[in-house]
Amino acid sequence: MNFLSDTTAPAHPSLLDAMVRANDGFAPSYGADAISQGVKQRLSDLFETELEVLFTTSGTAANALALSILSGPDDIILCHDEAHIQRDERGAPEFFTGGAKLLPLHGAHAKIDPGALGQALAEWPQDFVHTTPPRVLSISQLNESGCAYTLDELDALIAQAKAQGVAVHMDGARFANALAHLGCSPAQMTWKRGVDVLCMGATKDGALAAEAVILFGDARAHFPKLQARQKRAGHMLPKMRYVAAQYDAWLADDLWLELARHANAAGRELADRLCALEGVQTAHPTDGNEVFLRLPDAVKDRLQAAGAGFYAWPDGSARFVASWRTTQADIDAVVRAATAP
Amino acid sequence: MNFLSDTTAPAHPSLLDAMVRANDGFAPSYGADAISQGVKQRLSDLFETELEVLFTTSGTAANALALSILSGPDDIILCHDEAHIQRDERGAPEFFTGGAKLLPLHGAHAKIDPGALGQALAEWPQDFVHTTPPRVLSISQLNESGCAYTLDELDALIAQAKAQGVAVHMDGARFANALAHLGCSPAQMTWKRGVDVLCMGATKDGALAAEAVILFGDARAHFPKLQARQKRAGHMLPKMRYVAAQYDAWLADDLWLELARHANAAGRELADRLCALEGVQTAHPTDGNEVFLRLPDAVKDRLQAAGAGFYAWPDGSARFVASWRTTQADIDAVVRAATAP
Amino acid sequence: MNFLSDTTAPAHPSLLDAMVRANDGFAPSYGADAISQGVKQRLSDLFETELEVLFTTSGTAANALALSILSGPDDIILCHDEAHIQRDERGAPEFFTGGAKLLPLHGAHAKIDPGALGQALAEWPQDFVHTTPPRVLSISQLNESGCAYTLDELDALIAQAKAQGVAVHMDGARFANALAHLGCSPAQMTWKRGVDVLCMGATKDGALAAEAVILFGDARAHFPKLQARQKRAGHMLPKMRYVAAQYDAWLADDLWLELARHANAAGRELADRLCALEGVQTAHPTDGNEVFLRLPDAVKDRLQAAGAGFYAWPDGSARFVASWRTTQADIDAVVRAATAP
Amino acid sequence: MNFLSDTTAPAHPSLLDAMVRANDGFAPSYGADAISQGVKQRLSDLFETELEVLFTTSGTAANALALSILSGPDDIILCHDEAHIQRDERGAPEFFTGGAKLLPLHGAHAKIDPGALGQALAEWPQDFVHTTPPRVLSISQLNESGCAYTLDELDALIAQAKAQGVAVHMDGARFANALAHLGCSPAQMTWKRGVDVLCMGATKDGALAAEAVILFGDARAHFPKLQARQKRAGHMLPKMRYVAAQYDAWLADDLWLELARHANAAGRELADRLCALEGVQTAHPTDGNEVFLRLPDAVKDRLQAAGAGFYAWPDGSARFVASWRTTQADIDAVVRAATAP
Repeated sequence: MNFLSDTTAPAHPSLLDAMVRANDGFAPSYGADAISQGVKQRLSDLFETELEVLFTTSGTAANALALSILSGPDDIILCHDEAHIQRDERGAPEFFTGGAKLLPLHGAHAKIDPGALGQALAEWPQDFVHTTPPRVLSISQLNESGCAYTLDELDALIAQAKAQGVAVHMDGARFANALAHLGCSPAQMTWKRGVDVLCMGATKDGALAAEAVILFGDARAHFPKLQARQKRAGHMLPKMRYVAAQYDAWLADDLWLELARHANAAGRELADRLCALEGVQTAHPTDGNEVFLRLPDAVKDRLQAAGAGFYAWPDGSARFVASWRTTQADIDAVVRAATAP
Repeated sequence: MNFLSDTTAPAHPSLLDAMVRANDGFAPSYGADAISQGVKQRLSDLFETELEVLFTTSGTAANALALSILSGPDDIILCHDEAHIQRDERGAPEFFTGGAKLLPLHGAHAKIDPGALGQALAEWPQDFVHTTPPRVLSISQLNESGCAYTLDELDALIAQAKAQGVAVHMDGARFANALAHLGCSPAQMTWKRGVDVLCMGATKDGALAAEAVILFGDARAHFPKLQARQKRAGHMLPKMRYVAAQYDAWLADDLWLELARHANAAGRELADRLCALEGVQTAHPTDGNEVFLRLPDAVKDRLQAAGAGFYAWPDGSARFVASWRTTQADIDAVVRAATAP
Repeated sequence: MNFLSDTTAPAHPSLLDAMVRANDGFAPSYGADAISQGVKQRLSDLFETELEVLFTTSGTAANALALSILSGPDDIILCHDEAHIQRDERGAPEFFTGGAKLLPLHGAHAKIDPGALGQALAEWPQDFVHTTPPRVLSISQLNESGCAYTLDELDALIAQAKAQGVAVHMDGARFANALAHLGCSPAQMTWKRGVDVLCMGATKDGALAAEAVILFGDARAHFPKLQARQKRAGHMLPKMRYVAAQYDAWLADDLWLELARHANAAGRELADRLCALEGVQTAHPTDGNEVFLRLPDAVKDRLQAAGAGFYAWPDGSARFVASWRTTQADIDAVVRAATAP
Repeated sequence: MNFLSDTTAPAHPSLLDAMVRANDGFAPSYGADAISQGVKQRLSDLFETELEVLFTTSGTAANALALSILSGPDDIILCHDEAHIQRDERGAPEFFTGGAKLLPLHGAHAKIDPGALGQALAEWPQDFVHTTPPRVLSISQLNESGCAYTLDELDALIAQAKAQGVAVHMDGARFANALAHLGCSPAQMTWKRGVDVLCMGATKDGALAAEAVILFGDARAHFPKLQARQKRAGHMLPKMRYVAAQYDAWLADDLWLELARHANAAGRELADRLCALEGVQTAHPTDGNEVFLRLPDAVKDRLQAAGAGFYAWPDGSARFVASWRTTQADIDAVVRAATAP
């Protein structure tokens, strides 16, 4: 009954198998190995475009590296007030950019309100020496309330950004979950909508530690700078083959989507069954594997007594996160625990 | 015949086995898992003292994090001109400290000359507002010319540092190799000599990606700051258990020392047999697994023709690095290739 | 009719006279001169306490230096959403702190709402490694809407901050104007309320370029660090005597308060007479020398046609700033221009 | 007998007169005033080329701002081991660049040895992700041993830099003294030789606090970035007219060169007369207003007993600095004091 986070889940055995297979003889260091090169091709095929990719072992690193090539130290990064980059990374974006300002925007269910974005772009001009200009819009997909922006919602934000020359970053720590929900192609959810840099996370979806920073279109020109920053930040692992091997196995045969679909379905069932209990309501739509519920005290007490793992969220709700490893038995157990005797 | 670097070697199977064993069910994130806690105890026993430990996945990250808690942005870090932190980390120490100045010191065989250290400490005072004060002395053990400081040599440097209130950092990317060479205890080579923070590397000695930052004595008080910096730098992995599992297996039954002794012996044999060839000389003493040789052009040509992997070093020598995985056949092959027909 | 800013006004002649007097023979550099030392004593007498003081030539520098000794790079600085440090310093606080996060709080008339402060302190804990902890509360007095916090209002904010160990910075670019409005003593408006560091500006009140960073109580221990940061930021002027001389003349015979009272009275009269016109209203209370008015288009047009200098403020109002140099004729002229023929 | 530094001298009265004249009525803030614009034209005429100029109030700020637009955070700035930017600015270049690495080069009399420059450029490649690439060469003219590079010496260094795409910064804190020594035109000593950015100091040559960062040729494109950094660093003074007024008077009727010639001649006479004493020798050539002497202990004792102001320099010599304000009486007095009775 551990629903604390998808990072408490183990890795999928296929990924460990791939690492064991990769552990054979000598290989070039720092990403020049054959597996790393193969994954790049695989991603290019998946996204239907030329791209550059760089691997890291944490989502915080991926986001901060990505932002550091899009934003200078005296620029603004626009994001939702509840964005992971604002709330949960101990200032990593500020560190990697050399002091950029994160401007928190509001909007229901952790989605940036288009009006709030418009107001910020109006209040913070691009070319006034005394004020900090917005240079990046960061969008979390799946977001921090477990919601996926629809393609139209993405368009509404990105169009405003592009009109001001503002680049677009997508924090895809739960990219697979969002994609599984929308059912569109990876290209449709990213570069075809104007996303310049995508952080595509695997760790929460079955990897040990594997995240990819993917550069599309003109942003590919930043790749040498991105590599320099990766090295400088201590994120260029000597034996990079073991990270690439995880990605390789994760992408093979659409395993990544299968795992995300499993987690989403588990989230869905958990939400539906708990909401059937008296007084339980969702705080946010359940688009992926994260479930936010308003729980009566009695339910909360029963769950805690039974040792169910979930977090009390700052907005007063309870967060349950399903993962690729969540079993039917886990769901049954937590529903049973929540139900009045 | 790959002697390019010990980072081109694979991981020891025992470490992968440990990762597979760790991949069982849910576990707390970010280092709160049981394996991480167990390794801390193991290290404490090994070093015969209370300590704090934090894991990273690259030596650059370990060094930069360690230095960031010992040096402020307006301080000096003293190191050898050829130190890895000065030459090979793309400015990671400057990044993590917020702009500290690395002051390169000279000395033969990449060992800091005690006189050069004394001069620097005299020229850069501790309390003059216009100049940057030295706050950290960084010592590489094994160093970048493959040499180990003797205990007396360590004492001569550290005594000077401590007399000025300067903290001591040890870059132990090849700590095991140095220790195997000196034959003393881990405590004798570190905190008993005045080392405040040790970066103890496992990656070059059989791990996939595992480095430990170890705080001794009063430096332990910096642990919360170190954790905050680790998080901020994107080095606090969500599923930390897989890094700890590597360390656990590496330390078990003195595997780490056994692997280092193997690599050192391979380096020794390689140096001895190649030096038996006419015109071949060592450029630096071979204390560990790194061999620096001055090679006649004919020898160099034969080696390259045979596809032997080694680096042309900036000092004009050729660097060969043996690893835990170097076999007798590898050595025989490279010696055969180097020998005139 | 130049009401664009108090920084467009010239300097008071007494200050230039003092600079000319200071321009006599050789003097120690970097603040060790006799005038600098005398001003420190004068300030200590004025504030009725021991203090440390350091001079700069811009308010942005004063604020950023002050914040850099109170906040680490991975900390939060709490301020109003419209604060000068957030809106008008091109990220200077982020630069000087090495990447601190400014968390913008809301509240009417650019005053931080105590409830908003309480919520932020609750949402951002002091000791959770993943999130950035608040370490400084920055209060502008006079604030960016021209309002002065009452002593009770200061108490309500500062008490919350202190309860969490959060330090208090006061941006006093228009300190004299606020003090003249409240009529209390400098001590009562600062350290007796819990202010740790005050930036006391003279430039907007008759100086050429002179700002003081003043450390009270325990904050005095940061003085060596503050000096190092001043040097490192290029703000330790070699010939500091000319800045100190300005301060000396400014403080003499309460000239500073006299100039502020003049500016406040001019602002008051301007507000009253313009508000007597049909359709004109104040957007914020006029506590000092800044007047924010909602103007009918016809009035705005007449003023612009007459060449009156004022700014269209982001909140839709028109900002007029009176200064020590504003004359009765200036006020009469602008009122005449605004009045329908 | 104050020969401690040219920064202990007062300002030339003409400059204060100009400030008093500038103190008339309202003027645009932040450098948009008429005097600032006029000085830009004057400098353009003087240097016989289009240029951009930005004023600061300290040489440290000028250097650090200049370097921050030429060097990224992960780049190297090449300079002499004794350069002011390396030794005397408390890490300001590291701060403003976000962590660039200053690589100290050797050479007699504080002049960078061309061979040392060549070796550094060879050892630190432009395009290797693991090492920091050199991007800027910084040359002090007059340098820290009081010497001026000849035009040929400048060519020898700059040609090497340009061949690698390395930009050239000139620290001209004593630019006037060097120019007066060489007798060439300002253009010949700067952009015609390949200097991209010049920091032209007035403070040590008669100003209160006035330094100019001048961008030549393609470097002019960095001007908006330079202004943003100036603002962000708190160096964009609200009432900039008072700095521009100093520059205006300083450049008028070649006052700046006249003052430098006076100081150089005073230095020359001081060196010649003291070297006539038994056992006194120059440690470095006296090209400008700085005199470095090796003094017998008896001479040193007599000078100190007489209260003569000079510094014991780290290289064991005694540094005397003449200024525009040094009188014949000052020189006579110090020579008399040094002479055995």
